[in-house]
Amino acid sequence: MNGLYAEDFADLLEPSAILNAEQAAQRSVAPSRPGQALQVRCLLRPNSTEQVSAILNRCHAAGQPVTVLGGLGGGGGFSHAHEVAISTERMNAIEHIDSRASTALVQAGCVLQTLHEQLQPLGLSYGVDYGGRGSATLGGNIATNAGGSQVLRYGMTREQVLGLEVVLADGTVLSSLNRMLKNNAGYDLKQLFIGSEGTLGIVTRAVVRLRPLPVSQNTALLALPGFDQVTALLAHCQRNFPGSLTGFEVMWKGFYCGAVQNHVAPLPAEQPFYVLVETSGADPLRDREHFEIIMQQALEHEWAVDAVLASSQAQRNALWEVRERVMWIMSAPDWHVFDISLAPSAMSDYLRTIEQELASHWPNAELVVFGHIADGNLHVFVRFPEKMPQQTYEQLCALLYPPLTPLGGSMAAEHGVGQSKVAHLHYSRTPEEIALMRLLKRSLDPLNILNPGRVLSTRPLT
Amino acid sequence: MNGLYAEDFADLLEPSAILNAEQAAQRSVAPSRPGQALQVRCLLRPNSTEQVSAILNRCHAAGQPVTVLGGLGGGGGFSHAHEVAISTERMNAIEHIDSRASTALVQAGCVLQTLHEQLQPLGLSYGVDYGGRGSATLGGNIATNAGGSQVLRYGMTREQVLGLEVVLADGTVLSSLNRMLKNNAGYDLKQLFIGSEGTLGIVTRAVVRLRPLPVSQNTALLALPGFDQVTALLAHCQRNFPGSLTGFEVMWKGFYCGAVQNHVAPLPAEQPFYVLVETSGADPLRDREHFEIIMQQALEHEWAVDAVLASSQAQRNALWEVRERVMWIMSAPDWHVFDISLAPSAMSDYLRTIEQELASHWPNAELVVFGHIADGNLHVFVRFPEKMPQQTYEQLCALLYPPLTPLGGSMAAEHGVGQSKVAHLHYSRTPEEIALMRLLKRSLDPLNILNPGRVLSTRPLT
Repeated sequence: MNGLYAEDFADLLEPSAILNAEQAAQRSVAPSRPGQALQVRCLLRPNSTEQVSAILNRCHAAGQPVTVLGGLGGGGGFSHAHEVAISTERMNAIEHIDSRASTALVQAGCVLQTLHEQLQPLGLSYGVDYGGRGSATLGGNIATNAGGSQVLRYGMTREQVLGLEVVLADGTVLSSLNRMLKNNAGYDLKQLFIGSEGTLGIVTRAVVRLRPLPVSQNTALLALPGFDQVTALLAHCQRNFPGSLTGFEVMWKGFYCGAVQNHVAPLPAEQPFYVLVETSGADPLRDREHFEIIMQQALEHEWAVDAVLASSQAQRNALWEVRERVMWIMSAPDWHVFDISLAPSAMSDYLRTIEQELASHWPNAELVVFGHIADGNLHVFVRFPEKMPQQTYEQLCALLYPPLTPLGGSMAAEHGVGQSKVAHLHYSRTPEEIALMRLLKRSLDPLNILNPGRVLSTRPLT
Repeated sequence: MNGLYAEDFADLLEPSAILNAEQAAQRSVAPSRPGQALQVRCLLRPNSTEQVSAILNRCHAAGQPVTVLGGLGGGGGFSHAHEVAISTERMNAIEHIDSRASTALVQAGCVLQTLHEQLQPLGLSYGVDYGGRGSATLGGNIATNAGGSQVLRYGMTREQVLGLEVVLADGTVLSSLNRMLKNNAGYDLKQLFIGSEGTLGIVTRAVVRLRPLPVSQNTALLALPGFDQVTALLAHCQRNFPGSLTGFEVMWKGFYCGAVQNHVAPLPAEQPFYVLVETSGADPLRDREHFEIIMQQALEHEWAVDAVLASSQAQRNALWEVRERVMWIMSAPDWHVFDISLAPSAMSDYLRTIEQELASHWPNAELVVFGHIADGNLHVFVRFPEKMPQQTYEQLCALLYPPLTPLGGSMAAEHGVGQSKVAHLHYSRTPEEIALMRLLKRSLDPLNILNPGRVLSTRPLT
């Protein structure tokens, strides 16, 4: 096939909405990779669902591969020179906020931070938040089923989505903009698209659930002497803050040391674990009193050896800043980033195993760990002192992923599969599961034009 | 095709696991319909996933339609004389409870009440509960994405399921027994089967999330003078009990009057609305004090004109009993039961519309309403003083459903589509959505042997 180029869309979009290959190459593949130019046949910037539909309809007829650009925060969806890229950047409106029903109708290109900012004066909040909020889009969040720092309380992005509008591979618009919590009128089709990384359809609009903005928040950073104490503290918090524990972020010593380096450290970097605990509630005085009692008990039980409680918004921001410095690692090119999940009870053994393996293969490698452990999610970062060839990444995967299989762990907890992990899917999914994924892909996108090569390999879909 | 009979499974199952048509007819179609005999070719009672797989493999080869019997509480999945029925009644074990990770591995035939009873001494709870707990099975809950009285706090059954084992139409076992909250390693296949009413696969096992058993519960029944006060009270409760409001059940006067008839009424039946409010927490003294303050405020604002707070478990049970008498209506043959959802802001207008319509068509008809209104879910019951022909039900549907379409409401909120609502799906779903449902059905069950005629019509799947 010859495929399509910028000029083939001139009748569908206004000129400013069409960037040819050269113009597109002025952009970088992601905000975190400023030097890496975007290489695509053309970059289209539709401003409506109808335009997305017309583009896909034409690409489908031509068998032209398409890639979708959201906020590009994850760094997973890198495009290829033969692909037509669709950016949702001009479809960024918050169309409607229903305060009474606690729902919002948003376009796919709406930036996460914009939604949070619009909701705040209304006393409302959105259940998904994380460090990349300034560039991440709602559509990207939905396509990747984003996690973040509030999964513990509100669940992943999947649980925030009530309704979804999606354009299918052939241009069919599937408008399922349900606004109710309950709807069992047939199959819940939106679930197919949430977390499918744009391989089954392109998200254009969504109805998301909103939550009351917490009136009070209490935040503490604690230093802990061991992993047993971390799980004991977690159980203590879950028992005593049911429905109000919104954060439980665990930093292994190496992560904490790196994050406080060249900054004021809220607690001395002497203990093996640092935990950021946060609760959200509706009654400032009562919540504060309760929070202090529960944190005091943690010290009395010697689960924590030191603690600092934020007593202002500035102090709260300072504690979160330590934790959010994770982005500095994740966007640095010399760190290999892994996003795994496994049962918390297996974490300690798993980490000991890979630490030993790493030490025996690459004695100079640096290992840093951070985790949303209540969600079973660990971010494992590995750095080598010297530049290593690409095959090192594959060797690293072959070291980190196999121990997950007997534990039933996942090689992609909240960052998805993208292209880089396609070959490793079998560590977490059975042949029957992969066969069913391929069946779905083949049924919904028979020509394999949507984000080909992401999630599933590109070998013929037959 | 000739299809299969009891004797065709003699080599797969032990004799006691096979009931022929005559033996099956000794059973009723559902516990709530004792006089109505089950009419099927045979009833198979496998005791393992492997046996379910072998049965389906054989039925697939023969093109033999299969129906799945769970707890039969809903009364939706009535079978037909040409179908082979599979009951999960012997696959009822709780295989594993992981208290630390708050997960349980259960078999499909496990009864909801049994799970609750096993969890209680461990200080754990399951997020789904409702009046039919004594016969409902976990597999049935999952297949129908059951709702119930705790959706407000924990979500529908879908949000409780971490992993799922399903047997596909051809006998393929899809074992996705994930135990983590986060897993974005490819498509979340379990979502396809949850709420698909057994039409895409048969659920055999599941990993479900557990929650801490509440240490304290506070329950009140309030009498309210109007619907505006109901929504004001809801907003007040959502604001002041974030994460701890576990129940908000609204009974319209007619429902309340019926429910307290021949019983001791906790409050006189004089007001247009009665609301059961419940919170769950971890700190008995503190929670009680807070609950009393918030309920007192509701009275001071004159949202409620009367209130009774339960001060013992017996009193709490008595308040819930009023609300759970809904089952007496739902299982009575002379009530027509509707299960709709729509935005709470539209409820008042919607009910006024249908009340007027009903009065103009059938002046003697009785209308009774009960709702999980925070979930947007209303149960509407209609009874005629005299026996009406079957077509009346169709006429009733033609009166109740069309006003939902412009409101974006659903004609099946928590009770699913089954067979009786197949023809009405178009009131809530677009042609594109129905076409995609049919595509999924065709892809996963090309011979249309799984629960044919449920959710989607039986016209050829091409």
